[in-house]
Amino acid sequence: MTHPRSIVFLTDYGLADEFVGICHGVMARIAPEAKVIDLTHAITRQDVLQGALVLARAGPYLPDRAVYVAVVDPGVGSDRRAIAVETGSGAVLVGPDNGLLSMAWEALGGARRAFEITAESLMLPTLSKTFHGRDVFTPLAAHLAAGVSIEDVGPQIDVADLEVVELPAPMVAPGKVGARVVAVDGFGNVQLNVRPEDIQRAGLGDRLSVHGRSAPRVSVFADLHEHALGVIVDSQGYVALVVNQGSAAELLELRPGGTVVIE
Amino acid sequence: MTHPRSIVFLTDYGLADEFVGICHGVMARIAPEAKVIDLTHAITRQDVLQGALVLARAGPYLPDRAVYVAVVDPGVGSDRRAIAVETGSGAVLVGPDNGLLSMAWEALGGARRAFEITAESLMLPTLSKTFHGRDVFTPLAAHLAAGVSIEDVGPQIDVADLEVVELPAPMVAPGKVGARVVAVDGFGNVQLNVRPEDIQRAGLGDRLSVHGRSAPRVSVFADLHEHALGVIVDSQGYVALVVNQGSAAELLELRPGGTVVIE
Amino acid sequence: MTHPRSIVFLTDYGLADEFVGICHGVMARIAPEAKVIDLTHAITRQDVLQGALVLARAGPYLPDRAVYVAVVDPGVGSDRRAIAVETGSGAVLVGPDNGLLSMAWEALGGARRAFEITAESLMLPTLSKTFHGRDVFTPLAAHLAAGVSIEDVGPQIDVADLEVVELPAPMVAPGKVGARVVAVDGFGNVQLNVRPEDIQRAGLGDRLSVHGRSAPRVSVFADLHEHALGVIVDSQGYVALVVNQGSAAELLELRPGGTVVIE
Repeated sequence: MTHPRSIVFLTDYGLADEFVGICHGVMARIAPEAKVIDLTHAITRQDVLQGALVLARAGPYLPDRAVYVAVVDPGVGSDRRAIAVETGSGAVLVGPDNGLLSMAWEALGGARRAFEITAESLMLPTLSKTFHGRDVFTPLAAHLAAGVSIEDVGPQIDVADLEVVELPAPMVAPGKVGARVVAVDGFGNVQLNVRPEDIQRAGLGDRLSVHGRSAPRVSVFADLHEHALGVIVDSQGYVALVVNQGSAAELLELRPGGTVVIE
Repeated sequence: MTHPRSIVFLTDYGLADEFVGICHGVMARIAPEAKVIDLTHAITRQDVLQGALVLARAGPYLPDRAVYVAVVDPGVGSDRRAIAVETGSGAVLVGPDNGLLSMAWEALGGARRAFEITAESLMLPTLSKTFHGRDVFTPLAAHLAAGVSIEDVGPQIDVADLEVVELPAPMVAPGKVGARVVAVDGFGNVQLNVRPEDIQRAGLGDRLSVHGRSAPRVSVFADLHEHALGVIVDSQGYVALVVNQGSAAELLELRPGGTVVIE
Repeated sequence: MTHPRSIVFLTDYGLADEFVGICHGVMARIAPEAKVIDLTHAITRQDVLQGALVLARAGPYLPDRAVYVAVVDPGVGSDRRAIAVETGSGAVLVGPDNGLLSMAWEALGGARRAFEITAESLMLPTLSKTFHGRDVFTPLAAHLAAGVSIEDVGPQIDVADLEVVELPAPMVAPGKVGARVVAVDGFGNVQLNVRPEDIQRAGLGDRLSVHGRSAPRVSVFADLHEHALGVIVDSQGYVALVVNQGSAAELLELRPGGTVVIE
């Protein structure tokens, strides 16, 4: 293979420290020709579910057969396993075995084979107890991108034994959908764990309300008056609460993990 | 052409979400060899004028014949047009037709030809109403960088019909310059819409004052006492209020869009 | 040389402005093929010691023979020199002569030769008094990465005359180590200027206390109860105060430069 595979990199490290830069250095040493795409480093600290969601939804927009390396890892240094998972689509996912990768492999054709990462020759000699992003995960991803076989990272393990995380489903009743806030973006748009078909199953139409406020269903922001609340289907196909030229999260005082009832 | 053109990428998306990373993925799928330069993603949300200024001033420092893709787009999903503009210098600008690109084409040799982006084959099939950065603008920029002709993006339109934005001029009177705050940088330096020649036209010398405070005109920070206010010509040729080892914006309580009188 | 050298880029510019993006543009114009690794741009404004520490510790994780360009430069525009330093390991360091580079050359085999940067042909014609990152340092780094000889940047200077910065040593007494906070990372972990051997020299064991609170020495976060304070050796080999699933910096109200006594 002439060209190395692309690497997709997601963490909760933030950009206030040099952690992400150090990992880029590590990958550049091992696979200097590989393109590294920073998906995001702003996952809420140790929020494995949020990381899993972002990773899974990004798949269609990322290079095929990429090597994904994701680190949201509250259990670093404990006995949680480090894993590499090959998906049905030919991508490889690298990270801790805490469910972080599980939604992504579902979105990428399923987990075809999984391996526990144990080969010390593919890790850094500085192997620390606290920074496996630098010492275990990104070096391994770079080796895989550069052509190392997934079979060389360690013993194969049963995909049925891997940890998974799941998004709770909304509660749908006649005239009501009980929803959970999945994410709030930088514009204050509130993404819910609700699909348009859930609204329909509840028998609701376009005249919705949230917390006693009118929230008409619209197709674009510009259909709302300035500063008015509305419901749209967002760019990922989920129902979201939005305010035209404003923040729905602020207006409704909602944060990720919060609950809301659409009526 | 062996090498793809470079892509310059500016938005108001911020880095707290994965939006920028997703767009990088989209571009890497279409033009894997193109270098993408993140000019900034920290434009104040929906501040088209600020985005236009940053884009226009950056030109001399960016690769020639780059494809610029800029997204500050309060009208996303409305009937505002999506455009690609070829400049006199050979650059191409891609973004919404809301004036965001207008100062850049002036700085890059003028708008030679403009096209409305309508070719769905150059967009993503997921075409959403809210995320045209992902679905329209960055895929188009990547196609152009990879060699697609600007004539293939859609019908040619009259450059005279394009939206433009303009920086208001300062008010110059004998002994006074009424200025507007164009930008505040991370160090607290306050850039004004004032050129050194405006100071001269007002008949002012080097002993200036602002809000009743002495603000001598100096050529470098180090000419000021520590924590002292002064006036310099900044790295873009504009008059700026600065504090040595401190923040002029905090001292004078100034924000972008605010006004100030230099005497 | 077929391939340009990699460039490592560190500043205190932050990402709220376009400064970093502009510098990337400058480097892409001069050395389009060079890989640029953003080590971090979040050094505390004008904190030369912090920048020096981050740069020095990153070396083992960055490409060999890289060109480092670092800008934390309170004296910009004054008569402080701009320098390029060749290290024993074959790396080159570019930046202001204020000590910022000094810990890095120690870590990279010592300063073999140093040159003052005076060649205007290697700077930008827009040479400003305030933005030497754009006009002097990054263009020079890109020219060096592209193959220009360090001997062409200006006159050779005596390495013994270069400015240096040093980390103060901890105060070690029987039963006590007086420490300084070197850094607080985004997780709230507090890195001290203390090595494990300092703890040992003080005759302290694993049952430590800090500010009257019990802080057992553990090897991984997971050895601590949730929200409990502890002492670990961090991924750089330094003693750090940590809280499992929490912020030691918040708990103890500590900031970089602060002091703490371990007993």
